[in-house]
Amino acid sequence: MVQGTANWSTEQNKEWLQEYVNDWVSFYRKHTDDGKVADYIPLLKEADPNLLGISIIGTDGMKIRSGDVSQSFTLQSISKVLSFIVACMTRGVTYILNRVDVEPTGEAFNSIMHLEMKGPKKPFNPFVNAGAITVTSMLEGNTSDEKMAPIYNLLEKMLGYRPVLNVDIYESERDSSMRNRAIGYYLLETGFLESDLNITLETYFKQCSINITVDDLARIGVILANDGEDPDTKTEIIPRQVARIVKALMLTCGMYDASGKFATYVGVPAKSGVSGGIIAVAPPRVREEELPFMSGCGIGVFGPALDERGNSIAGIRLLKHIASQWDLSVF
Amino acid sequence: MVQGTANWSTEQNKEWLQEYVNDWVSFYRKHTDDGKVADYIPLLKEADPNLLGISIIGTDGMKIRSGDVSQSFTLQSISKVLSFIVACMTRGVTYILNRVDVEPTGEAFNSIMHLEMKGPKKPFNPFVNAGAITVTSMLEGNTSDEKMAPIYNLLEKMLGYRPVLNVDIYESERDSSMRNRAIGYYLLETGFLESDLNITLETYFKQCSINITVDDLARIGVILANDGEDPDTKTEIIPRQVARIVKALMLTCGMYDASGKFATYVGVPAKSGVSGGIIAVAPPRVREEELPFMSGCGIGVFGPALDERGNSIAGIRLLKHIASQWDLSVF
Amino acid sequence: MVQGTANWSTEQNKEWLQEYVNDWVSFYRKHTDDGKVADYIPLLKEADPNLLGISIIGTDGMKIRSGDVSQSFTLQSISKVLSFIVACMTRGVTYILNRVDVEPTGEAFNSIMHLEMKGPKKPFNPFVNAGAITVTSMLEGNTSDEKMAPIYNLLEKMLGYRPVLNVDIYESERDSSMRNRAIGYYLLETGFLESDLNITLETYFKQCSINITVDDLARIGVILANDGEDPDTKTEIIPRQVARIVKALMLTCGMYDASGKFATYVGVPAKSGVSGGIIAVAPPRVREEELPFMSGCGIGVFGPALDERGNSIAGIRLLKHIASQWDLSVF
Amino acid sequence: MVQGTANWSTEQNKEWLQEYVNDWVSFYRKHTDDGKVADYIPLLKEADPNLLGISIIGTDGMKIRSGDVSQSFTLQSISKVLSFIVACMTRGVTYILNRVDVEPTGEAFNSIMHLEMKGPKKPFNPFVNAGAITVTSMLEGNTSDEKMAPIYNLLEKMLGYRPVLNVDIYESERDSSMRNRAIGYYLLETGFLESDLNITLETYFKQCSINITVDDLARIGVILANDGEDPDTKTEIIPRQVARIVKALMLTCGMYDASGKFATYVGVPAKSGVSGGIIAVAPPRVREEELPFMSGCGIGVFGPALDERGNSIAGIRLLKHIASQWDLSVF
Repeated sequence: MVQGTANWSTEQNKEWLQEYVNDWVSFYRKHTDDGKVADYIPLLKEADPNLLGISIIGTDGMKIRSGDVSQSFTLQSISKVLSFIVACMTRGVTYILNRVDVEPTGEAFNSIMHLEMKGPKKPFNPFVNAGAITVTSMLEGNTSDEKMAPIYNLLEKMLGYRPVLNVDIYESERDSSMRNRAIGYYLLETGFLESDLNITLETYFKQCSINITVDDLARIGVILANDGEDPDTKTEIIPRQVARIVKALMLTCGMYDASGKFATYVGVPAKSGVSGGIIAVAPPRVREEELPFMSGCGIGVFGPALDERGNSIAGIRLLKHIASQWDLSVF
Repeated sequence: MVQGTANWSTEQNKEWLQEYVNDWVSFYRKHTDDGKVADYIPLLKEADPNLLGISIIGTDGMKIRSGDVSQSFTLQSISKVLSFIVACMTRGVTYILNRVDVEPTGEAFNSIMHLEMKGPKKPFNPFVNAGAITVTSMLEGNTSDEKMAPIYNLLEKMLGYRPVLNVDIYESERDSSMRNRAIGYYLLETGFLESDLNITLETYFKQCSINITVDDLARIGVILANDGEDPDTKTEIIPRQVARIVKALMLTCGMYDASGKFATYVGVPAKSGVSGGIIAVAPPRVREEELPFMSGCGIGVFGPALDERGNSIAGIRLLKHIASQWDLSVF
Repeated sequence: MVQGTANWSTEQNKEWLQEYVNDWVSFYRKHTDDGKVADYIPLLKEADPNLLGISIIGTDGMKIRSGDVSQSFTLQSISKVLSFIVACMTRGVTYILNRVDVEPTGEAFNSIMHLEMKGPKKPFNPFVNAGAITVTSMLEGNTSDEKMAPIYNLLEKMLGYRPVLNVDIYESERDSSMRNRAIGYYLLETGFLESDLNITLETYFKQCSINITVDDLARIGVILANDGEDPDTKTEIIPRQVARIVKALMLTCGMYDASGKFATYVGVPAKSGVSGGIIAVAPPRVREEELPFMSGCGIGVFGPALDERGNSIAGIRLLKHIASQWDLSVF
Repeated sequence: MVQGTANWSTEQNKEWLQEYVNDWVSFYRKHTDDGKVADYIPLLKEADPNLLGISIIGTDGMKIRSGDVSQSFTLQSISKVLSFIVACMTRGVTYILNRVDVEPTGEAFNSIMHLEMKGPKKPFNPFVNAGAITVTSMLEGNTSDEKMAPIYNLLEKMLGYRPVLNVDIYESERDSSMRNRAIGYYLLETGFLESDLNITLETYFKQCSINITVDDLARIGVILANDGEDPDTKTEIIPRQVARIVKALMLTCGMYDASGKFATYVGVPAKSGVSGGIIAVAPPRVREEELPFMSGCGIGVFGPALDERGNSIAGIRLLKHIASQWDLSVF
């Protein structure tokens, strides 16, 4: 499908790419029937399972959007990326990584088993719930609002607007996520928490409940693709070292127990959430032929029907298809 | 240390790089005291723990070698990369990946626990022993020599010479590696083995016992960096899809239970063996400033003193240092 | 030491036994130095580690008491025996055992791992915390006081007085036992809890915090030894079937991960708590020679210095010594 | 059914008991349809699933036999009882129990997981395969026949004849039991084996393949019930301490992961094998009413149709029924 040495930034080629993405969104929308929306938080159950949308932003400024792009949804586990970035920026990478490891686990998204298996050791990585809650406890501030402030600030800096909390989802999570409360008490017992448990969990549920769109995810993604620098303004938003670590963690641990398969078959850093969102990051790459978004791009996908591993079923297939066709792999 | 827009391929810069690498090999050689040579195979114990050598080959033909480069050593777990490549090339990627998963485990190099934990499922990935032995059982041939032939052929194609078996090490492994025999019988019981167990284990111990040098590893690495194509002759040696999968597996599962840390802090696909060898692969990358080996390179390292995870202790530090300085990361 | 066909109930022999027990209490009191008091609940830390006391009551009415018998302490895990009995008496054995299994685990007293390992299955047995909290949730009543009432009633019926709550310990447990809260939320998530979590945990912490003495434990023990019938009044206090099940559970699961060793070397049903209490039950037994307490007895032991498994270090040795000498084993 | 103060040893009552047992054998024979014969060893598959037989021998000499009592079958896991007894008698209890623990596991009959979970520790107990193979390796002798000799000697002393090896079963086991070979190599690797692995496994498979009958099992059982002393000749065959430990292990670990349920609902030491045999031991007990076999008995059961845990499905039900009716429980 991709034509040799084309310059993909021309208006004509952009149209061509747009049509191409439209086609595949239509195609994969049918795949939503194979999955089902998350049901462990009551409000998430109400999502329309047939939605599918994608937004792609290149470091060169090219944008392709298709499908249900205007639908907002909550960050859920994608927020683990943001709280980890903020924690590293405020406490230092060393401080954080002394307390949370960076090893993948091969375990399911809802496992708490590994917490205990290695006994006195630290949580496996910042993208399992135990690790993410520990990271959240290391955010500065005495209330959940104080802890949330730097996350909102970072988002505002990246998105140009301040996203808002989905209060209904937040309250639903806060009142129903018993597994996270179990993990929280376990972390408290084992001495990992650095803030009051309730404030930590409030913060954690709030960060999960921020409303976002695929455009926002693509925008965050393109900044990460560009090593933390805003490609438009050329200003550093996230330190390069932090951006690099985050991309490595996304590749090794970002897709629950499908992380290895996603790394192998798609090969781009990505992080999913049970609301059906996925953020993917394609750093600039070298290829012999001219390919779309070669100088790097961020991708946001949304499709609330999930596979059994907790990833958007149509979203992951759409992403895999496009990433393969455009050879977005980091390898 | 790296100077802006220098063209690193000039003779003068090559000298400069060579000195630089020499300095760091000397520096990290002292770190060999922090580790110790593998002792679970009698003959490996005899290795000189103070050895340290590195070889780097760029896709552009530039070569840097330093330290104990003439020392040969056995492939050990690095051979898992080769048998997996050969199995994919002869049986097809789909056939192999239907039988062995590609998920990282977070487990130690000598664990057999995960084999059973997920019960009827397949071995976690081709780089844990259970997965590697399963892959070896899928090599074609009725004897271990027949099964080894395509591995030797592939090596000969890449290296320009046919490496030889270290018979002493092979016999030592064959007669002493009881854990692999345990895993083998377990795989037999659970129906994963596709060849006779003894022939499979013979083959497995033989592939582990092939003599190799850091130059050889660098040469294999640069071909993988170049997506399977020999950068000199421009001929395909390994299909691109296979090369990509191997690099993804190396990044997520290549360094035992330090894989996540290596991906996070170094960010290049790599595979280690308990003989003290490491192969690393830096695909071509895009950077604003001019950096050494930007068009990709392969790296071979050897240092038999190991850390507690089974990786060369000085080798991993040297690799981490150089990869950071030259920004070899795929992210 | 034991003299052939003596009738151990004569006054003279009673004195002889009393002296014997006194001697061994003095001897094993020195062993308290090998252990240390529980520290995971702040108030338990304040216990005097050198205390050691024992009380033995035979079905024939003979009583031997020695050491620190007047010291009261809290039931802690020994209360699991009582809540299980009450739950079986009010809801029926079948109802309870459909929801909690009766398999030993081999796991440590503070493990939560097994909860998840068998996934959808029920907690391993009523004497691991997950099982005990589940049992407590099945007690009838809408408040913790309502749920506690039948436990107090049963105790009053057995002891002749109504024991009281140690409010300080209760509040200390309630405010500090994060592991039990973790388990509680996990049980809530997985659907095992049959009452509100907070009320269940309040009840659980209250049952653990009932003040008791070694005389009380011996008295409860002798009723269990007598298959649930008060040996004095000949009235049934606990149905025989329930008494039998409890004794079987004590033998297989009563001493944390030393249960197998206690069954093997001592051979009597027993249950320990981290306050340092142990209740042991010797059913009537047949022996060729005449031995003390042959028609069965209950034993209460108290010694707050614990071994690493959470059992009273001197208490378990004293119990083992006496049980061996008098051949109390059920086997 | 049981009549007050009857003397069960009279001829008339014996007849009555015989009829009673006949009735229940007929009844439970229908339950064989709910199970299926072991299939992991080819020859075991050929057993007739509808067989059911029982033999009961009292310490007072009374014998009741019913059903398919003349059918011989192999000991399988029941042999773990015998090799453990012999090992304790020749090497001493302390020596053996320093190398194999006595904790129940809650794991299935074919698990190898626990071997590794506790890492450097010893096998959980002598009745899991890892523990039994370790025990067998501690038998004295340089060949499997030398190691088998004391087992045969012990059996001959108890049974009055020397049982024979089922050579076909032995060869079938030896050639097909890959899981045991996996465990064996694992034990070799971890240093638990005290004899050559092949000789150990040969011995292990031989002990499993001894032909036996329900009468033989009842005879062994009655000696254990009588604390190791032959009730007829009053001579000690097994030291009392060893007999006691074996009974404790049978109660806590004898019925695979149904051990806790069997202890709770039946309450007598028992050990099963996948050939469908069960040996049960009822020590003398004290009851108010006169009950059959009150002075203790041994029971042999055979029914090759197994439940999913590897226990004879009809055998376990028949045993449970009779043990409950006659109140054989040790508790």
